[in-house]
Amino acid sequence: MLKDFERNKKEDKDALGEQIKELRARLLAQQQLLRDATLPVIVLIEGWAAAGKGSLIKELISEIDPRFYNVESPSVIAESEERYPFLYQYYKAVPENGKITFLDSGWMESVVQKSLRHEITKSEYNRRIRQVNEFERQLKNGGYLVLKIFLHIDKDEQFDRLRALAEAPETEWRVTRDDLWQHKEYKRFKGAYDEFMKKTNDEISWHILDGRRRNTAVRDAMRLLVDRIDKGLAEGRYTGEPYEEKFELKKQPLLSEVDLSPTIDDEEYKKELKTLQTRLSELHNIVYRKKIPVILCYEGWDAAGKGGNIRRVAYPLDPRGFDVRPIASPLPHERSRQFLLRFWTRLPRTGHICIFDRTWYGRVMVERLEGFCSENDWKRAYNEINEFERMLTDWGAVVLKFWIHIDKETQLARFTDRQNTPEKRWKITDEDWRNREKWDQYEVAVNEMLQNTSTKNAPWYIIESNDKKYARIKTLKIIVKALEKACENHFKQTME
Amino acid sequence: MLKDFERNKKEDKDALGEQIKELRARLLAQQQLLRDATLPVIVLIEGWAAAGKGSLIKELISEIDPRFYNVESPSVIAESEERYPFLYQYYKAVPENGKITFLDSGWMESVVQKSLRHEITKSEYNRRIRQVNEFERQLKNGGYLVLKIFLHIDKDEQFDRLRALAEAPETEWRVTRDDLWQHKEYKRFKGAYDEFMKKTNDEISWHILDGRRRNTAVRDAMRLLVDRIDKGLAEGRYTGEPYEEKFELKKQPLLSEVDLSPTIDDEEYKKELKTLQTRLSELHNIVYRKKIPVILCYEGWDAAGKGGNIRRVAYPLDPRGFDVRPIASPLPHERSRQFLLRFWTRLPRTGHICIFDRTWYGRVMVERLEGFCSENDWKRAYNEINEFERMLTDWGAVVLKFWIHIDKETQLARFTDRQNTPEKRWKITDEDWRNREKWDQYEVAVNEMLQNTSTKNAPWYIIESNDKKYARIKTLKIIVKALEKACENHFKQTME
Repeated sequence: MLKDFERNKKEDKDALGEQIKELRARLLAQQQLLRDATLPVIVLIEGWAAAGKGSLIKELISEIDPRFYNVESPSVIAESEERYPFLYQYYKAVPENGKITFLDSGWMESVVQKSLRHEITKSEYNRRIRQVNEFERQLKNGGYLVLKIFLHIDKDEQFDRLRALAEAPETEWRVTRDDLWQHKEYKRFKGAYDEFMKKTNDEISWHILDGRRRNTAVRDAMRLLVDRIDKGLAEGRYTGEPYEEKFELKKQPLLSEVDLSPTIDDEEYKKELKTLQTRLSELHNIVYRKKIPVILCYEGWDAAGKGGNIRRVAYPLDPRGFDVRPIASPLPHERSRQFLLRFWTRLPRTGHICIFDRTWYGRVMVERLEGFCSENDWKRAYNEINEFERMLTDWGAVVLKFWIHIDKETQLARFTDRQNTPEKRWKITDEDWRNREKWDQYEVAVNEMLQNTSTKNAPWYIIESNDKKYARIKTLKIIVKALEKACENHFKQTME
Repeated sequence: MLKDFERNKKEDKDALGEQIKELRARLLAQQQLLRDATLPVIVLIEGWAAAGKGSLIKELISEIDPRFYNVESPSVIAESEERYPFLYQYYKAVPENGKITFLDSGWMESVVQKSLRHEITKSEYNRRIRQVNEFERQLKNGGYLVLKIFLHIDKDEQFDRLRALAEAPETEWRVTRDDLWQHKEYKRFKGAYDEFMKKTNDEISWHILDGRRRNTAVRDAMRLLVDRIDKGLAEGRYTGEPYEEKFELKKQPLLSEVDLSPTIDDEEYKKELKTLQTRLSELHNIVYRKKIPVILCYEGWDAAGKGGNIRRVAYPLDPRGFDVRPIASPLPHERSRQFLLRFWTRLPRTGHICIFDRTWYGRVMVERLEGFCSENDWKRAYNEINEFERMLTDWGAVVLKFWIHIDKETQLARFTDRQNTPEKRWKITDEDWRNREKWDQYEVAVNEMLQNTSTKNAPWYIIESNDKKYARIKTLKIIVKALEKACENHFKQTME
């Protein structure tokens, strides 16, 4: 894409100034319309060192009310220092509805630099390209207006600019080793940028701007932005349709086929519990040292015994190395962002265990049934979730998902017990009774969820919990086995 | 305090077990009462390496519903890596109402370690002691139940435990260099812990527990916690009274005495604006390199011209090095925490500039007038804010506060203009008109605020803004002068 790039001709200065002024006025008027239409905008500015990304952003924001925008400058973090998945910091930058985020370089710079530094393998590079495309598709389908700009200068121009910066004492510090390295390796970088753009041009296309003439670049970027927003305003919020994406799925039984009769006797329970907890405690140590992130997801019927199950898993863990994240309905500022974002920000660091008490699967259960999102939204969510979980397992995480299962009669018995026992009464609310009335609808939704999202890398486990003790032992066994396998694989991979 | 410490005698194992069981049941019942009473609890566990802090916390949380607690393990960060004020990570750990935070070591360990490593000077040590006492007083006055425990073991015991850990292959990695250093320097540490506890025993007193016998420590800690919660529940939420604290204050005129007639002609405005913005841009570079954090606070009447003023200040800044933080009314989860917390989490990193469009002074203006907090709360807030800002300037920040001032007639004219101009109409709401009706009450509150919080380290500047251009130039001049002074002082201090 960079090969055929033609430089802008010199333009009349006054005419340019007039055009910029007019575009600025349009942008000023648009911010209010964006807010009314609750449309979020992401402007990614990538490009060469010293191409003028910072000053371009400065011009773009100069007339926008500070309440409506945010500038993020994610740094390229050395692989060895990273404790979160690759896209983590870009997800975190996703704006609220009605606001604009400007990114001063982002996922492109990160992937290209790491690839040229050989910090990531070729196959990891390809995975990241795929993840970027998935990320951009999710943004687009979620109604984000995304604009991607690459600010281009040639090698001579870069040389002149870097020299000018380096020669003035007050700007000398701005020239970093990375910049000099890039200049030295200009050709390799050019090829890498080019390849990256070609491979990520399908969901949201790239715009290459000539960075040589500052005002021309400002005018062109502003025009792209204003046009993009106008188009977005005219078309209204986009909601992407469900799409096909291949995932290797593990077959799951229908809930109605699950035999809920298994039990465990007290003595065996105590013995097994102790053995498994001791083993889990040891494994937590290993996982911590090997920096394997672990994500345990709990979903299930009300009163199925999630809380007690989680406590038995958490008990042997070192409190410094795990967190339980109870998930309630999203807060207003969370609802105003892509639905997975509030889970991205709750991910564990490498080596830590995170137990989610309810999860992102709310999207295809309560949000679906209560109409909190559109049909396209929840239908698309199966694949969006599969992609999300694949990003987690690609990162090296162990992801296990438990559906804590009971039958309708057991739930009634437990609800009644809670109602009649003063110390337990807080556990039961009117909402629980209302949800119970929708049991059959939920069962349909849960069955669909289990079929569509039990991927090989992040499988569902149905845990029979009419006997809570049986359920705890079964869950612990699955976790212990999975962690043993992960530690072993990790051993093989790293060949310690 | 550690000198007179007497070891627990060995106790009957079964009796201990019974006591723990009973306390556990009480704690289980309390969590619901805490939630109903919306009381927040902070449990700080400090103590020797290998004293068993982690496993004590494990026992304390074992029966608590994960939705009600959080375990934080703030690490002691080397001074050179810190980009936020000393108390930042502890403020961030403050729980929501109705929840419990357990801290696995905290502000004590940080201060003691840094002092023994000579990373902080004696006077900085004393400042931190003062800050800790202020922090604890603010928590107590804000209704937090705070429990501070020090887990004690003697040198021989520590030796045995560290050796046992180091000799087992699966725990060997747990013994850190810091632990060995502490053991070697046991006596110095003992003196330092002792001194720290003596100096921070007034607001919230320390409890020293014998770490030698695990179950005794668990029983004692649990009893302290259960008793503390019982007391808190019985007494109801505490609201501290205003207190005296000496701050050197700069005299401010009453708003009614301010001459609002100054203006600036257009040509001079343009010239000055350009000169000042150019200078500010240069200073931003220096501030960035010298890692001086800058905090600019804007308050003022509706339609006084805050937005336009902020834009003129922001324009010359590098977007990668500053943020504008518009402050709206607190979200539910923010309202459920100490009022300054949402500003702590929005602080700039060292070297960055943060512009607050409205600030923590909402406490003594809108929250006071609308009754969103009690009289004690807003009266106490003057000193709490002064303490907060002193922590910021102690950290090295430049803190400037602007009251953008207009008269009542000018406001009316601007409101009417906004109402009559379609592009500006979004800027005016019913609330603005309602606030206008309360002008006189606000004037009383603002005058009190200016008198009580214009400290020498973080002064208020009244900016006459009947002529917005005059206001912008005056603000820019103040900022430029303050940054020049800060860069110079920093130069002197560091003797580069």
